[in-house]
Amino acid sequence: MLNVVMKVPVHGQGLYDISHRVRRIVDESGVNEGLVTLFVRHTSASLMIQENAAPEARADLQNWLNRLVPERDPLYTHNEEGPDDMPAHIKAALTAVSLGIPLMSGRLVLGTWQGVFLWEHRHGPRDREIVVSVMAYR
Amino acid sequence: MLNVVMKVPVHGQGLYDISHRVRRIVDESGVNEGLVTLFVRHTSASLMIQENAAPEARADLQNWLNRLVPERDPLYTHNEEGPDDMPAHIKAALTAVSLGIPLMSGRLVLGTWQGVFLWEHRHGPRDREIVVSVMAYR
Amino acid sequence: MLNVVMKVPVHGQGLYDISHRVRRIVDESGVNEGLVTLFVRHTSASLMIQENAAPEARADLQNWLNRLVPERDPLYTHNEEGPDDMPAHIKAALTAVSLGIPLMSGRLVLGTWQGVFLWEHRHGPRDREIVVSVMAYR
Repeated sequence: MLNVVMKVPVHGQGLYDISHRVRRIVDESGVNEGLVTLFVRHTSASLMIQENAAPEARADLQNWLNRLVPERDPLYTHNEEGPDDMPAHIKAALTAVSLGIPLMSGRLVLGTWQGVFLWEHRHGPRDREIVVSVMAYR
Repeated sequence: MLNVVMKVPVHGQGLYDISHRVRRIVDESGVNEGLVTLFVRHTSASLMIQENAAPEARADLQNWLNRLVPERDPLYTHNEEGPDDMPAHIKAALTAVSLGIPLMSGRLVLGTWQGVFLWEHRHGPRDREIVVSVMAYR
Repeated sequence: MLNVVMKVPVHGQGLYDISHRVRRIVDESGVNEGLVTLFVRHTSASLMIQENAAPEARADLQNWLNRLVPERDPLYTHNEEGPDDMPAHIKAALTAVSLGIPLMSGRLVLGTWQGVFLWEHRHGPRDREIVVSVMAYR
């Protein structure tokens, strides 16, 4: 078993591919059959498994979500942390905070077109934290 | 290992903080390194990890979701259980039914601002059930 | 421990009940206390726990999501795989790619009205793959 706190530096909204970093942790664990759990320690960023090939698909996804959850909506009363804060909480609520990915023969069972991403919902640069747990089956 | 069925009494729509109850189950389990899985046994309530400090953020989240998924939408044909029933199913579909939270050194790896909530989507009082599983790594 | 790759043939959009197939895998595993993890290996289909009794509820859910994420939205730039492709990615992003369901006394802890579904978001016939992991607690 291995618990790793992974720091992901971000420079604003968007999908950051962390697949290779998760794979490296799995390789180092030496676990063949098991379960990887990812958990993001924030309420304004998400975990996302999405299309890893077409960058247009990821751009469309970001633009669609920005239109669904716009900034400066008169509905918001929680404004003190900036116009991107409340939309970020809503976006996080609609997406995943944790993901479970089985391991078979030492590999994540991701499909061919699936990448693992941190989805940052705020504008500024930050260091985000994701806990990666690798658990062996017996 | 410990499987606990937690009953959560609710009195209508809203986010109910269950963080302290989950922590107590973790403490009683004596597990230090492991995985906690939460599962809600209903199709009109969700699990949510969200901002634990600002009540305005939770109110905005509730109001935003109510606007996205209103009652008495002419699209609905499943009406026999009341006007809050079909919106509750849709809200549950857009949010989480299960959450995996790693344990490190006997503590949930929640971030500073993260609380664990039951999100009730219906109006009336009810007892909801959440299964809390605490699994030790070897 | 048991890792099974389950193939689910689909013939277009909709919710496909896989509860009985997951239960059969659990029965064959012989595990009594543990955790089942489901993972869908695609970015245009989801896993969904929903109402298993009323087909109208599932039809309303499908129609509501189709209205929220319509085809031929001028926002989309990723169009080369057909008009149902980009909406399918967005729908998958809003719903679950993995689910954790605890096992107690050899049974999934699903509530009375909860079924486990593959939610197909594209129109054509396909074979979808879901990995089912059954892990025993000690």
